[in-house]
Amino acid sequence: MSLYVYEHTVSFGDCDPAGIVYYPNFCDWTDATFHGYLRDHGPGHRSLCAELGARGLGLMEVGMRFRSPAVDGDRLAMVLESIDWSERSFRVNYRALIGDRLVLDGFETRGVFVPGADGRIRAAPVAPLRQRLG
Amino acid sequence: MSLYVYEHTVSFGDCDPAGIVYYPNFCDWTDATFHGYLRDHGPGHRSLCAELGARGLGLMEVGMRFRSPAVDGDRLAMVLESIDWSERSFRVNYRALIGDRLVLDGFETRGVFVPGADGRIRAAPVAPLRQRLG
Amino acid sequence: MSLYVYEHTVSFGDCDPAGIVYYPNFCDWTDATFHGYLRDHGPGHRSLCAELGARGLGLMEVGMRFRSPAVDGDRLAMVLESIDWSERSFRVNYRALIGDRLVLDGFETRGVFVPGADGRIRAAPVAPLRQRLG
Amino acid sequence: MSLYVYEHTVSFGDCDPAGIVYYPNFCDWTDATFHGYLRDHGPGHRSLCAELGARGLGLMEVGMRFRSPAVDGDRLAMVLESIDWSERSFRVNYRALIGDRLVLDGFETRGVFVPGADGRIRAAPVAPLRQRLG
Repeated sequence: MSLYVYEHTVSFGDCDPAGIVYYPNFCDWTDATFHGYLRDHGPGHRSLCAELGARGLGLMEVGMRFRSPAVDGDRLAMVLESIDWSERSFRVNYRALIGDRLVLDGFETRGVFVPGADGRIRAAPVAPLRQRLG
Repeated sequence: MSLYVYEHTVSFGDCDPAGIVYYPNFCDWTDATFHGYLRDHGPGHRSLCAELGARGLGLMEVGMRFRSPAVDGDRLAMVLESIDWSERSFRVNYRALIGDRLVLDGFETRGVFVPGADGRIRAAPVAPLRQRLG
Repeated sequence: MSLYVYEHTVSFGDCDPAGIVYYPNFCDWTDATFHGYLRDHGPGHRSLCAELGARGLGLMEVGMRFRSPAVDGDRLAMVLESIDWSERSFRVNYRALIGDRLVLDGFETRGVFVPGADGRIRAAPVAPLRQRLG
Repeated sequence: MSLYVYEHTVSFGDCDPAGIVYYPNFCDWTDATFHGYLRDHGPGHRSLCAELGARGLGLMEVGMRFRSPAVDGDRLAMVLESIDWSERSFRVNYRALIGDRLVLDGFETRGVFVPGADGRIRAAPVAPLRQRLG
């Protein structure tokens, strides 16, 4: 299953002294995958937030399991597999592959963050976002 | 409880267009916290790996819950709270605080990765590392 | 000469497969040094921009010469040495040191970017900023 | 003129609180462009270094002028335009474009770094690299 695929060729500078991808870069690529999906299925993050009166579609939780290493020159496909919608959050599921080899599976739980009456940010219902992304 | 504290003042460039810390940077800081701990309780990652015949003390899994946002100028304390030792992995537990406010709690599960007879990397028993870090 | 010093202990994740600092990180640290200076000599970037009606104190040019390598564990001092003020730009001069050893010298040329009548961003006179940072 | 083009769609996380690309990311992309060129015109950095007895093709100097901003969703083409070869260094010239609009022009001066008899790293003649890249 796949809703969107982000492709990235791993570069020297993505890797650490052990010669494999420095793991925070995987978070950078899952985030880029999510934002690519938003542009592919709608007007992109900025316009979506304007429509929804939101400050951002930010992170509540992240989890990743690293299955095999990636090195300079590897062609990585970061797959946004599915989204599980809850009341005030949604979970985006990812798998990263190099060819057939699984590199990573994981998720980001995100919310639609809006400013409340007291000025503090809170997580709003996600139904309008879900409907918009169709 | 605290085994090590990494301090970082959040800077403009750590933040995204919503004005809050771009979340992969938190992974960068947990990693830096772990490596700071290795230097504080031993000879540091490179020398430790040489002693243990390891290629690296790399990631198997990561999980983080984002509790409140951090912005430019915030003084962040990333606390390495504890390590849970298993047979061939260990889980490093973190909390990030700005003053008394909780920003993040999470963990990294890491292994001691050594080259096997077939040249492939595998997770070795972690007891020697545990003993070395005392 | 020194207007501000930003200290950073180089970590494993800052380094590339050659084991030395991946160079874009130096830009990250000069930027953090500039923003630390803004907080040290004034109210910080966000408040300064609000005062000046500016969108940001952004980059027009950068130049760096890399004099010697830095590795995991090195204690780096990024020194903001001086600022050369022009009419609509200012040049911030840096040196990075590990102990007495020069690692880098360089500069960032920045402007005070304001929205013009046509909505486009342009570089405003820097005199108000200079006066404010005193 | 163009020896290689690296394409990147700017993502939310590449941008700073002013909503434009955080400038160290441009250095990340010039570095990725150079390494993409090495894979396109030869066996890539790792194998090239093994052939040349080099530790890396590292940075001696960098310079960039920022001509116009880039934002989330922009399709950036980072063009490696030419290489100027000297005796013990080479200068790689870049232009970044969004459509016809110039975003950045700049250069990286790099060397072929080899371990000397005393164990210290020094810049070797670049002629063998030049010949290999043809």
